[in-house]
Amino acid sequence: MRAARYYGKEDIRIEEIDEPVCKEGEVKIRPGYVGICGTDLHEYLGGPNFAPLTPHPVTGEQIPVTFGHEFSGTVIEVGAGVTGIAVGQRAAIQPIIYDRTCAACHRGLHNICYNGGFVGLSGWGGGLSDAVTVPADYVLPLPDHVPLDIGALVEPLSVGWHAVAQSPLTPSSHVLILGGGPIGIAVILALRARGCSSIIVSEPSASRQASARRFGADHILDPRTEPDFLSTVRALTGGEGVDIVFDCAGVAVGLEAACQAIKVRGTVVNVAIWERAVPFNPNWLVFREGKYVACLAYVRQDFEDVIQAIASGAMQPGEMITGKIRLEDVVEEGFKALITEKEKHVKILVQI
Amino acid sequence: MRAARYYGKEDIRIEEIDEPVCKEGEVKIRPGYVGICGTDLHEYLGGPNFAPLTPHPVTGEQIPVTFGHEFSGTVIEVGAGVTGIAVGQRAAIQPIIYDRTCAACHRGLHNICYNGGFVGLSGWGGGLSDAVTVPADYVLPLPDHVPLDIGALVEPLSVGWHAVAQSPLTPSSHVLILGGGPIGIAVILALRARGCSSIIVSEPSASRQASARRFGADHILDPRTEPDFLSTVRALTGGEGVDIVFDCAGVAVGLEAACQAIKVRGTVVNVAIWERAVPFNPNWLVFREGKYVACLAYVRQDFEDVIQAIASGAMQPGEMITGKIRLEDVVEEGFKALITEKEKHVKILVQI
Repeated sequence: MRAARYYGKEDIRIEEIDEPVCKEGEVKIRPGYVGICGTDLHEYLGGPNFAPLTPHPVTGEQIPVTFGHEFSGTVIEVGAGVTGIAVGQRAAIQPIIYDRTCAACHRGLHNICYNGGFVGLSGWGGGLSDAVTVPADYVLPLPDHVPLDIGALVEPLSVGWHAVAQSPLTPSSHVLILGGGPIGIAVILALRARGCSSIIVSEPSASRQASARRFGADHILDPRTEPDFLSTVRALTGGEGVDIVFDCAGVAVGLEAACQAIKVRGTVVNVAIWERAVPFNPNWLVFREGKYVACLAYVRQDFEDVIQAIASGAMQPGEMITGKIRLEDVVEEGFKALITEKEKHVKILVQI
Repeated sequence: MRAARYYGKEDIRIEEIDEPVCKEGEVKIRPGYVGICGTDLHEYLGGPNFAPLTPHPVTGEQIPVTFGHEFSGTVIEVGAGVTGIAVGQRAAIQPIIYDRTCAACHRGLHNICYNGGFVGLSGWGGGLSDAVTVPADYVLPLPDHVPLDIGALVEPLSVGWHAVAQSPLTPSSHVLILGGGPIGIAVILALRARGCSSIIVSEPSASRQASARRFGADHILDPRTEPDFLSTVRALTGGEGVDIVFDCAGVAVGLEAACQAIKVRGTVVNVAIWERAVPFNPNWLVFREGKYVACLAYVRQDFEDVIQAIASGAMQPGEMITGKIRLEDVVEEGFKALITEKEKHVKILVQI
């Protein structure tokens, strides 16, 4: 079968490899659509970071590994002992690999498993292939009226949903989002689905500004040209600042802005993965008793909630898909397009 | 009357000034004992920071201001309209000045009043004088069996109590405290009073280590000599790290240690005031979904809780007092002693 395998920095190869065997407790999926995300791009441009150079503690694998962790697909085989899942079922795949024995997993926090990884980054195959096997509980059925391309958006949407679920959002919250990329949009969609009606997005790119507005931002600020960013945020929020900032940008200048933009007892939720340490003065939070809350990925409940919100129409993410390409073109029209035309795209899907 | 007045860096003068007039709604206090704290030292060594160089938004005053915000005393006059407080009543003074009209104060968060200040730093006189007037609701009566010197400890103890009250402490929490100075000890005492039985203190000074142990720390680590600090913390806490860190040190190296020492979903509570921005990588928190919670000072409830804990014997802070001096000696035997013999002292009280 075909598989896009990651060998290291700027080295992804479409290869023929053996199809995986569907073992006890597993389900074999024929991927339908696979999104390419920022983590994939970081691996391609500067990795390996997540992809293991030594055997991963759960999968035992190391590079080369098959890529693709944002994916939907159709069940083509069901392993021994699996109940409730039938061949032909369409599904979104929860890709976080967890070891089930660690203290975090015992508390249901698979996203912060002490030995965690990802299908499509850490071994066990990935979505960018003709078939992949995963434990049965990684398979979340899609309702019949949710198409497979939308199903491939469940993973990035769950990142935004999880961040909002970890925040102290109330119906009257004022919110500021730093960054209008795919995760910023996922946060907007989750906020809208949960009834938030005061969303400011800070984003320098004109095309991303337009995109954020289309998905439901009430106010757009350009942090490079706004003459007094904090005063404008306060003016838009009754004078005190926002209740919650979602940092989906992960850049140094944004950290201070995030801390200064919240009102007393406000919360900064970090959704970004950072590249390096940046200057931080805790006093930015001290004099307003602010909180800084770090989020990572999602738990199974977030996946279920996102599928439900899509099924009910509360979230309509279809316009996030700005391109569909073939597996053979994943490097040229996928990775390279997202690098050179980053701001033109929200989400490119690979059709398997 | 006598008053220790702050004119600027390294300039505190004992002067004769007019006794304040006790106006409507106010109470006049004859201070009993006054503590000197780290904030006072920062003003003396490198200020003015808190002391206003331009008219303070609430007091309208600027330097010179009378110093002393950690104090107890006896009511010597009661202004018109004040009920429930009688001449002769012994009390601890809640010194935070708030403007009552701001949005934070409307939510009861006087400690983070948008225009806040302190009696003894921002005007309205201070404890280091023969008399001071404060609004009646700043006066918290002391039970008859709590002496005035212990009453002067209520303010710093409330800082620690507030930090613990803002934390997610449970009876089974493992706790790490960075810094064994007066506020670190206040945190230990609050934790003990609330039933915590797993307290690690990180402190380089031998005399402060001994002091932390005396007040109830279960384990003392020297961060300079501990060969693998994080491994030791994890070994002392069942392998995962602590539930809560209280940062009472406010130094760069401690910030990373604090973030790395917590278990998944753990909390770093910052109690320190910082001097400058320091390197911070949010990823330290991301991969464990940690929280960073900033605290400032206390609210009235913390004062009430501390007085109750002292009255019941749940907190026994008497040994924090390592020196008693006269007002005339406040600079030489107070400020200068705390600077040159910092580690010898926990709390020096000025007896008025």
